[in-house]
Amino acid sequence: MGNDEVVLLNFWFCPFAGKVRIALAEKGIEYESMEQDMVNKSDLLLKMNPVHKKIPVLIHNGEPICESQIIVQYIDEIWPHKSPLLPLHPYQRAIARFWADFIDNKICDLGRKIWKTKGEEKEAAKKEFMESLKLLEGELGDKAYFGGENLGYVDVQLLPFCSWFYAQEKFGDFSIETECPKLIAWTRRCWEKESVSHSLPDQDKIYSFVLDVRKRFGID
Amino acid sequence: MGNDEVVLLNFWFCPFAGKVRIALAEKGIEYESMEQDMVNKSDLLLKMNPVHKKIPVLIHNGEPICESQIIVQYIDEIWPHKSPLLPLHPYQRAIARFWADFIDNKICDLGRKIWKTKGEEKEAAKKEFMESLKLLEGELGDKAYFGGENLGYVDVQLLPFCSWFYAQEKFGDFSIETECPKLIAWTRRCWEKESVSHSLPDQDKIYSFVLDVRKRFGID
Repeated sequence: MGNDEVVLLNFWFCPFAGKVRIALAEKGIEYESMEQDMVNKSDLLLKMNPVHKKIPVLIHNGEPICESQIIVQYIDEIWPHKSPLLPLHPYQRAIARFWADFIDNKICDLGRKIWKTKGEEKEAAKKEFMESLKLLEGELGDKAYFGGENLGYVDVQLLPFCSWFYAQEKFGDFSIETECPKLIAWTRRCWEKESVSHSLPDQDKIYSFVLDVRKRFGID
Repeated sequence: MGNDEVVLLNFWFCPFAGKVRIALAEKGIEYESMEQDMVNKSDLLLKMNPVHKKIPVLIHNGEPICESQIIVQYIDEIWPHKSPLLPLHPYQRAIARFWADFIDNKICDLGRKIWKTKGEEKEAAKKEFMESLKLLEGELGDKAYFGGENLGYVDVQLLPFCSWFYAQEKFGDFSIETECPKLIAWTRRCWEKESVSHSLPDQDKIYSFVLDVRKRFGID
């Protein structure tokens, strides 16, 4: 492992890149982070992800791996000995993959609509966002983590989106904790881990970023 | 394996269910197919997939697994000894998962737009559809299958969408074979396998289905 060259084409605010940062931190893998300009895309990014031209890209000994869920699974398969993320049993693995997909398809898009749209579209997004969080709270149940006793694959997928909760609450005028107390207790538990808190942007910085985007798009 | 109870909540025209049928056929797994009414959804479907309420759902010894890519991976993990689908090496697995995602995100939606939209939207879809098929042809290269010498994970993901090629060519007024001869040679090679040809609907039936949908939506 000592000879591995690991590079992450990164963008600090991107929750998809955040998943990869948490997974690498959990596994204790050292890597070079190369922050990308997403307006003027680098030749390296275009070469490493010619199909989607998006971050995150993990470059492991020169070979690129794209798409955040796929990268996290790769990290788990190539460095299996520390902090296993996916469960061992096929059925439990299928359940974990199901919720990872659910998070990407629901939490990301709906969460963005809360601060990027107005009127009916915003209200519908708020409703479905909260319903989706409640489903996730149901899946968490009384476990310490989605992964059980330890942080696992679903935790890694969801945590980067939780950095946006503060901005979503401010612009959505609701309290996630009132509706989903167990989920918020879980985020606090996770943020006590350096692998999480050192891998994700501060909620105040995200709030400022959202404020700036809203001004630029004239949403007020 | 003899005591396994395997049920597929199925819909014959659905390419996502088609992937699961091919995977089960490749593995030689006997199963009960329960064709679903997608307008009046059955209590069983709502119970087995309460989040998305969609087919396919694989019910294995009473436990539901949802989402086609996740089901195919489950099938590969639970019955690993015959016809392995995903490669063994993590990097090759990541590449296979990348193309599976690409197929779901590009080929399905763009293919539908070819016969379901008109004017500029249709022309843009035709262009991007063909570009996407060319990328897939590049990935296939001179291999017999995407999986190499044997049918693999990417083959299983793409084949059900190829049943729709005939209808797409008719309504898109183009020839896929002219642009992607290796890809069409690959489809013919795959259709010689009973696991494929017996698992997918006939292209003429899909053409009639598309014709019917276009009439209902007044697209002509």
